[in-house]
This record gives sequence, C-alpha cells and structure tokens, in this order.
Amino acid sequence: MENKNIYTDLALEERERFKKNVEIEGVKIDKKYDKNLKMTTTVVDIINKNGEKAMGKPMGSYITMETRQLKNAQEESRRNIAEKLMSHLLEITKNKKKNKILIVGLGNSQATPDALGPRTIDNIQISDEIYCISPGVLAQTGMETYSVIKGIVNEINPDLIIAIDSLAARNVRRITTTIQLTDTGITPGSGIGNHRKGLNKETLGKDVIAIGVPMVVSGATIVNDTMENLLHILATVKKENDISNILGNYTEQEKYQLFEELLSEETEQMYVTPKDIDEIVENLSKTISHGLNLFCSNVSAKLI
Amino acid sequence: MENKNIYTDLALEERERFKKNVEIEGVKIDKKYDKNLKMTTTVVDIINKNGEKAMGKPMGSYITMETRQLKNAQEESRRNIAEKLMSHLLEITKNKKKNKILIVGLGNSQATPDALGPRTIDNIQISDEIYCISPGVLAQTGMETYSVIKGIVNEINPDLIIAIDSLAARNVRRITTTIQLTDTGITPGSGIGNHRKGLNKETLGKDVIAIGVPMVVSGATIVNDTMENLLHILATVKKENDISNILGNYTEQEKYQLFEELLSEETEQMYVTPKDIDEIVENLSKTISHGLNLFCSNVSAKLI
Amino acid sequence: MENKNIYTDLALEERERFKKNVEIEGVKIDKKYDKNLKMTTTVVDIINKNGEKAMGKPMGSYITMETRQLKNAQEESRRNIAEKLMSHLLEITKNKKKNKILIVGLGNSQATPDALGPRTIDNIQISDEIYCISPGVLAQTGMETYSVIKGIVNEINPDLIIAIDSLAARNVRRITTTIQLTDTGITPGSGIGNHRKGLNKETLGKDVIAIGVPMVVSGATIVNDTMENLLHILATVKKENDISNILGNYTEQEKYQLFEELLSEETEQMYVTPKDIDEIVENLSKTISHGLNLFCSNVSAKLI
Amino acid sequence: MENKNIYTDLALEERERFKKNVEIEGVKIDKKYDKNLKMTTTVVDIINKNGEKAMGKPMGSYITMETRQLKNAQEESRRNIAEKLMSHLLEITKNKKKNKILIVGLGNSQATPDALGPRTIDNIQISDEIYCISPGVLAQTGMETYSVIKGIVNEINPDLIIAIDSLAARNVRRITTTIQLTDTGITPGSGIGNHRKGLNKETLGKDVIAIGVPMVVSGATIVNDTMENLLHILATVKKENDISNILGNYTEQEKYQLFEELLSEETEQMYVTPKDIDEIVENLSKTISHGLNLFCSNVSAKLI
Repeated sequence: MENKNIYTDLALEERERFKKNVEIEGVKIDKKYDKNLKMTTTVVDIINKNGEKAMGKPMGSYITMETRQLKNAQEESRRNIAEKLMSHLLEITKNKKKNKILIVGLGNSQATPDALGPRTIDNIQISDEIYCISPGVLAQTGMETYSVIKGIVNEINPDLIIAIDSLAARNVRRITTTIQLTDTGITPGSGIGNHRKGLNKETLGKDVIAIGVPMVVSGATIVNDTMENLLHILATVKKENDISNILGNYTEQEKYQLFEELLSEETEQMYVTPKDIDEIVENLSKTISHGLNLFCSNVSAKLI
Repeated sequence: MENKNIYTDLALEERERFKKNVEIEGVKIDKKYDKNLKMTTTVVDIINKNGEKAMGKPMGSYITMETRQLKNAQEESRRNIAEKLMSHLLEITKNKKKNKILIVGLGNSQATPDALGPRTIDNIQISDEIYCISPGVLAQTGMETYSVIKGIVNEINPDLIIAIDSLAARNVRRITTTIQLTDTGITPGSGIGNHRKGLNKETLGKDVIAIGVPMVVSGATIVNDTMENLLHILATVKKENDISNILGNYTEQEKYQLFEELLSEETEQMYVTPKDIDEIVENLSKTISHGLNLFCSNVSAKLI
Repeated sequence: MENKNIYTDLALEERERFKKNVEIEGVKIDKKYDKNLKMTTTVVDIINKNGEKAMGKPMGSYITMETRQLKNAQEESRRNIAEKLMSHLLEITKNKKKNKILIVGLGNSQATPDALGPRTIDNIQISDEIYCISPGVLAQTGMETYSVIKGIVNEINPDLIIAIDSLAARNVRRITTTIQLTDTGITPGSGIGNHRKGLNKETLGKDVIAIGVPMVVSGATIVNDTMENLLHILATVKKENDISNILGNYTEQEKYQLFEELLSEETEQMYVTPKDIDEIVENLSKTISHGLNLFCSNVSAKLI
Repeated sequence: MENKNIYTDLALEERERFKKNVEIEGVKIDKKYDKNLKMTTTVVDIINKNGEKAMGKPMGSYITMETRQLKNAQEESRRNIAEKLMSHLLEITKNKKKNKILIVGLGNSQATPDALGPRTIDNIQISDEIYCISPGVLAQTGMETYSVIKGIVNEINPDLIIAIDSLAARNVRRITTTIQLTDTGITPGSGIGNHRKGLNKETLGKDVIAIGVPMVVSGATIVNDTMENLLHILATVKKENDISNILGNYTEQEKYQLFEELLSEETEQMYVTPKDIDEIVENLSKTISHGLNLFCSNVSAKLI
C-alpha cells in the first residue's frame, strides 16, 4: 500500500515523470474533462515492450478517473461516478469472457486506509455466477494473497477476476480523489517493495481487472513536496549561496531517495493519510461497490 | 447454525435422548466434574457403525466442556478454560501430524451469533506454519465454504485443519456455556438443514478438528420447553381431561416437529439468542483464540 | 426494549386488543393504505383521560407506518419511506417551535437489536442548530438516560427533542416492518418493566417526538402464537376433551402471563430477533436518518 | 488531536525545549528508569506562575510513562503498565475526594487515532458510583464537548472526573509509546488550535485528571526531523555554501513554522500515524481501561 523509492501505483503518475509534450514510444495517452462531473479521465495505454520499460508497468490499459467528488458522501455524485465506473468496466472487458465473475477485496479490513477492498466486498450483491471474497493479508492469515486466490480460482473456475485494492500515490492531491482501472492485474502490497506474486492472467490463467484508489503517501513524499516549495521560494528570493546549489545536481528520484534515507526509523513505520479517512473509506467503498453491482447486473442481463 | 427438526450439533445432547443408564452399543461416555473450574467435561466416543446410526453423528471423539464461566469476561477463568482447551486439543491430536496447521473461522462476521469463528481468527497469532482464514458464508461470497477451504488446502497443504463455528443446541441452558471439540470435522451451516459438503478427512484429505459453541436455539425449542413445563404442572393438578391426553401419544420428536410446523412463517425467520450476545461472542472468541494460541505455540515448540 | 406481561410499545397493538368495530371513548383511529409504497399508515389519537386509561398510553398522537419494504436495502423504497417519515414529522411538529433540534439515539450500540438509535445518529448531518447525541444505556454508563439528556438539554436549550429507539412489539409480524412516531415522548427501556424516568415535555420541559421500530419479541410471544395455532387446529379436529377446555377460561392476557411464568430462567435472558438483524438495523438506520436529515433541512430552510 | 505551530500536549516535550541542566524557575523535574518494565517515568511539576509561563501549560503535576511495551499486546506487560497507571492515579488523587467518579472518553470513535478515549470507555467496569460517557466530538454532535460534560456533571455531581484523550506530540518516537497523566485537566482538541473550553477544576468545579497518549504528529514534524538529519549530514561534509547558512539564523520554532507554511493545503488535511494504528489503539485502550478498573475498585474498596 505504500511506496519505496519513488514508487507509485498510478500509471498516470509514471507518465507525469516525462514532459507533457514528449512522446514516449509505446505509450499512448488520452485525457478528457467532464464538466458536469468535474472529472478528468485519462487513458494510458502501454502497447509494447518499450512502453513497458519506460513506464515500469506491464502492457495494457490504465484508466484513471480523477475528481474531488469521490471523497464526498453526496448520493447523486456517488451515483454518477458509479455509472462511469460501470461503463469503463464494460469497455475494458469488452472482448473478455465474463459469465462467471470473482470479485476480490484485497487489503486488511482492520487497518482503515487498507480496508477499501474488504469494505467494498461487504456491499457486493451476490447472485448466480457472481462470487466474492476478502482474502485478508499475509500478516493476518500467514498466507500469500496469491495462494488463497489461486486455490479459490481452481475450485470456482471464474472467467474474470476483479480485484479492488488501496494504492500508493506520489502526489498528495491524488489521495482518495482518483480511481485507477486496469486490465493488467495487480500485485497485492506491491508498493511495499516485497516482491509478492501478482494476480494476473499469467499467474492465474484468467483475465484480472484491478480497481484501485490511492489512500496513503509516504513521509518522504511530504518532505519532498515541502522542500520543493522551499526551493521554489528560495529561488525567487536569493540568487546564490542557497540550498538549490547543494541539491541542484540531484535528479528528482535521487532527491526523493535522499529524503527516504533521512527519514527516521520511527517515521518509516508511519503513513500519511487524510484525517477523515474512516468516513472516506466508507464513501469510496459504497461508490465502487455500486459501480460493480451495476456492471454485474448489466453483464448478467446480457447473458439471459 | 440452527436446528430443523430436533437437530442438535452436540453429541452430548444426542446421547441425552437415551436414558442415562441404558448402554448404547458403539457409544462410550465418560463424564467428569472439576470443582475448581466448576466445569463438567464429557467425552462421547462413537466407535462403530451402530453407534453412528444410534447417534446420527459420524464415528469419532466428542469432548464437551460445560461451564457458566464461559460467558464471563474474568481473565482468570478465561485463562483456565483456555488451558483446558489446549490440553484437550493436544489429546485429540495426539497421533496426528501437525507441523502445518490451518485454522478456519466459519460463519458470518456480520451476524453476531454466527460471528464466533471470524472473531476467533482475529485473535490468532500467526507464525511459521500457522495459517488462518475466515472464508465467509455462502450468502456473502456466493461460494460454498467447502470450495473456498478445499482450494486453499490444495495450495497450502496443511497437515491439520482446525475449524471454529457457532452451533445449534436443543437445550437453552447449553447456549454459550458449552464448547464441543471433535475430530470428526464439521458441516458448515449443518443445523440449517441444507445438505452442504462437510469439512472432514474424507472430503479434504486432511484431519479436521472442529471447535464449536452453541449460540442459538430455534423458536420451537422454546415452545417445546414451555409446553413441557405446562404439562408438568397440569399433570400434578388435574388428573383427566387435559392436554397431555391430546399430545400424550406423541413422541418427544413428534411434539417438537408439531411445534416447528405451528411456528408462524415470520417466527421461522427469527432466532433466540442471549440478550448480551455481542459481549458473549467477544469473550468466547478471546477464550478460544487464547486456547488455540497456546496449542499452536506448544506444538511449534515441540517441532524445534 | 422488551415486553413483560403483554406489553407493547405500539399504540396500534394496544388498539388491536379491542374489537375493530368497537368505539373506545377518547381514542380515534384512522387507517390508510398506499398502494405504491405498499404501506399502511395508521394514526391513533388518544384525546382524553378515558382514552389514556383504556390504552395504557399517554394522550397524544401515534402514527404507525407499516411496510415490509422497511427491511430492504433498495435505495428507491428507502427514499420513499424517508420522505413519508419527513412529512409525518412536519405534520406532528406543525405547531411546535423547532429552531434548535436535539436528536437523541437511545439504546446500546453494542447490542445489535438495541443499536437502532446510535446507528441512526451516526448518519445525521449536523448543521447550525441541529445537535445529536447517543447517550448509551445504564449498563454502559452507570447513568440513567434521563439524567444524561436532562443535563445536555439544560446546557443546549433546544426547542425540540427527537428520540429514536428500538421498541418491543407483541406481534412477530411487526418486527422491523413498522415505524411508530409519537409526540408523547418515550421512556427508555420501558418495555423492560423498570420504572425509568421518561423523556417527555413534563420531565424535560421541551417537546419530545419519539421514533421507534419494534426489533424484538419475547419468548412468551412465540409460545403464545404457537399455542393459538395449535388451539385453532385442535378446535377444528376435536370437539371435546381438548386443551381449549383447560385454557379456555383464561383471558388473552392471562394466557400470555401463564406462558411468561412457564419460560425457563435461561429463556428469560434471551430475545427473539430476525436472523439478519445486523443488516436490517443498518438499512433501518439509514432510512430513518435520511428522513430526519430531510426534515431538518426542510425546517432550516424555512428559518432563513 | 494535532499540533499547530510547534505545539505539543506533553509537558515533558515542553521541558525538552530547554537545555537539560538549565534550571527553570517554577518547574521541577524528576526522572526514573525501571529496568524490569523498561519504562522511564518523568514527573514534571509546574509550581508557580513563572513555571506556567515558561512551559505554556497550567500549574500542576504531569507524570509521563514512556515504554515501547505500550504498543504491544503481551498480556503480562499490559498488566504491569496497568498497575503502574493505577498507582500513579492513586498518588495524583491522594488528597482529592473520589467517592463518585465520572470517566470521560474524549475523541471520535469513528476516526481510529482519535478513538482511544471511546474505546477505553467500552472496557470500563461500571459499578456503584462509577459512571462513564463518550460524549463524541463537535463534528459528530454539533455540541462542544465541554457543554455535554458540564450538563452531565450538573446532573450526576461526581467528586472526580477522569478524562482520556488522544494527544499530539512533537517527537515521532513518543507516538503510542507514552502515557501522560495530569491533574490539570484537558482541553479537548486543544492541539487543533481551536480555542475550545477546557475541562478542568475552574470550568467544571470538580477535580479533573487527564490521561493521554500521543497518537499523531503533523506533517511539519516529519519535514523538520528529516531536515535536521539532512543538515547534520551536510554539516559534517561541507563547510560553506550550505543550507545551514540559509536556515541557520532561524530558531527551532521559526524553522518548524516555516515548514508548516510550506506544507501544501492537501498535506495539512492529513496526519501521520503508525501503520498498525488500529491494533495499537485496541491494545492501548485495554491497558488504560485495565488501569482505571484497578484504580476504581481500589478506591471503592477503601470506601467500604
């Protein structure tokens, strides 16, 4: 759920490392703004090995819905976002078999910012050929999430797996305001840097759609952001003799890593999360489960 | 978690259908009372096919610990019961392989009297070769508990499975005052009369120990008990012309079934449970998890 | 929250003790059925001392909304019921001052069927001059609910108090399918027979509206209902020599009390509640809080 | 619960702003280390107006128990800490009337790091003359905590009030490892900078003991700590031309304020808290409630 180095779970943020108008071979990007919903939707497609390498993410489609409405409890905006989520789910699974769907709520129900997956599962409407499970995390069960899901997939044999998880972002503004959808699957706890086994077509033999929302940033992000603000101000005030000389020949990533290393041991054991995270998780889980329920009943209706 | 007909999950209560001093071929019974703990421990052994048939339960050992202390929160009595539970677990698994143990919390975490299993799992100390999972119930996941557990067992390959579940009893006094331990496994939701697939050596290929506590009785039990009290009084007051004439030629079971059928449809959708069930489930889950943690660390210590 | 004797919190059920077409002096009754909502609305008005005595309830208006939709989670029917609730609240407070409103969630948040009040409070939207509190119960706080509320009322000085509570009913069919609104206030835990101090205009010096939903029946109700079914059948089969002779000269109330006395001590410590009570409480609390939020914003809008 | 400027709720941390061996007129300090418990206990006494001014805290006694054991779930160390807490409570209330005690759990039960107070209350054993309440926070109830407590105190008239709250600290190492006890009362949410009305002898007319544990630090603390680490390293490597020149003429407090101002708006809405905060809050609330229960039964025993 967190980031080591300058890690982010969002393809969108990986793309932002590069200049806006620079074309990256193998990466396509498309951005739209919906005035009514006040929502920016960005589709990043990684279409070849070069794109994979440049972005550090597997080939596939990454859809990002960004809106500050996401945090809120207003029923109407929740419904609108849920409908958007449904249509993106229909789009991203257009050519995939989806008679039997297994929905997986990743994360730890006992740790609020990591509880998005399990809470979403609590609101899924079970029906014929719609299954769901919250497998818990390694620290709770002693088992890799991959092993639990692999076992269940073998018994149930679903066509499609949809996994919901809390993500890590690099940019504080993205926390709890962004949903990412991808057809590339997910590696539970990937942000933590443990090289766990991913949930994807290769490992499970089934299509895996992942839905994620960034819930935390690391302490290093805050230091980094603050320092950037400091340097920005210093740059305008002083011309010489300043901190930018000292850190000036560091790349973005090197600076971030420096701050990471400078974090005290205690701080590493902490995360940075919104003050009203309990309420936000409840609202988000309702919006996402609503979108999933719409998607499942839409899919079921077409089967009949 | 409930009873249809005159169903009970407790072997002890099955035995009580027969007269105390009548010997049932194939069934051995041994009862002890511990003054300090104010605990009655009964071991019912079903040793052959005849015993199975008489008791309506599979061959194996059924250990019942009965004490009113079980409901309470007192740390000391909780510790004593946990230690007893550990020693019964050691005894019942004496000749079984137990290097890798999977602990399964059966039941619905969202329905208090059915939440004993999941709550117990919340307090299990994970360690090397100790795994645990709360698989949810069919109504939550759309999957048979058997399928979820079978899948996980195939991936993890434990030597021993320990399943914790809420049970149904026939006698109101046993509710939340009794722990049953058995080496015969368990059928999740067996009381409900759905013929679900059991968790046992035959179906999972692994030894399965079940730990259960009766949490509910059906409305019919209450009617039955009350009617017995009524008949008892009537028998002493009136000699003729009474209700016992009417119901007199019904067997125990027939009377119970009669009351079952007379329950209104709405009443059938209800259960009878202690008023302070939330607190009791919390206390019980702590006692049982404590006993399991002691058992697991005892087993691990011997492996080293 | 429960009933001793043949107690019910519902004025509607008190009225049902009398024959339908018998007029009770001092009690007016008006019943309507809404086809779309499948909802029966009954207004019982107790208008004088004779009515009070006949009904065993204080003078005032009792509005009952009955519909099986209440249990369900469907957003649309929840919204419809919430709007009805708002309009009944507006009606019943028509001539009352309501600039400052204190909403009180009575009951024990740790005991599911008694948690309706506190859960409703969790979803109330606080705004200027709208206050709310869940005071807990005597067993949690050591204080009478009356004392806690009286103290707060003295500090905050609201114009109007609205109290939400779990009720006891006599008829199993009413459990979780009925909302009662009254302008007569409420006595917390009144069903339990403890003579606690009520929350009403007399004790608090402020208008008190009570909103309640029956959540439990006592074991005696189930025995009583079952026996009635039994007698009904016996009456059609046998002509003489039957149980109805034995209990035939008991009044309804005497029979109920007989069954109460015949309940075992353990059964008295239990309640009868729907199997899916956790989910029902969640749905009900959302519907009621939605109705209250609509009422409060309607009232606030008029103030501007 | 948080800090603006260089705010801390801990008297101990205020004292640390001054050099160790400098005597502050009006402030006495006494420090002890218990090897067995691995616990440092510091008593800071502010004995006059000069001490008040120097420390920015009211006159009175501040006892701080520091140990990393506090986070852990081990029953034995929890019991030891609880016993220490009891004896400090007995000491600090030695000359105070304590026949009737009201225990108040401050904070928001729905926001994990702020839920320490309400969770502690959940485990308090009510008895004759021991009362408790979780009044909620302004954002939940629309009422100042002071008003709720003042109202209840007027009705119940306790001799002594004990309030439990989550605190803000300046030093990351103190988070969830420190309990502060004081006889000076508490200002709910004081760290947030809102000038709320405090709970103390002056405002409530009763002795108020406050028990608090630091649960969060602000983002600025992390930036500050990281920058200090950076400067420390830079100081050893470079001699001139460095950041310390730039920030060198800032005081500690000025630097902190600078970082505060540089935090982005989004970051200000976030807090920094341990990853396993849910589990820590559960453990802490059990330890503190255990200590309070021991204190209350000790006090009650002496009354008889």
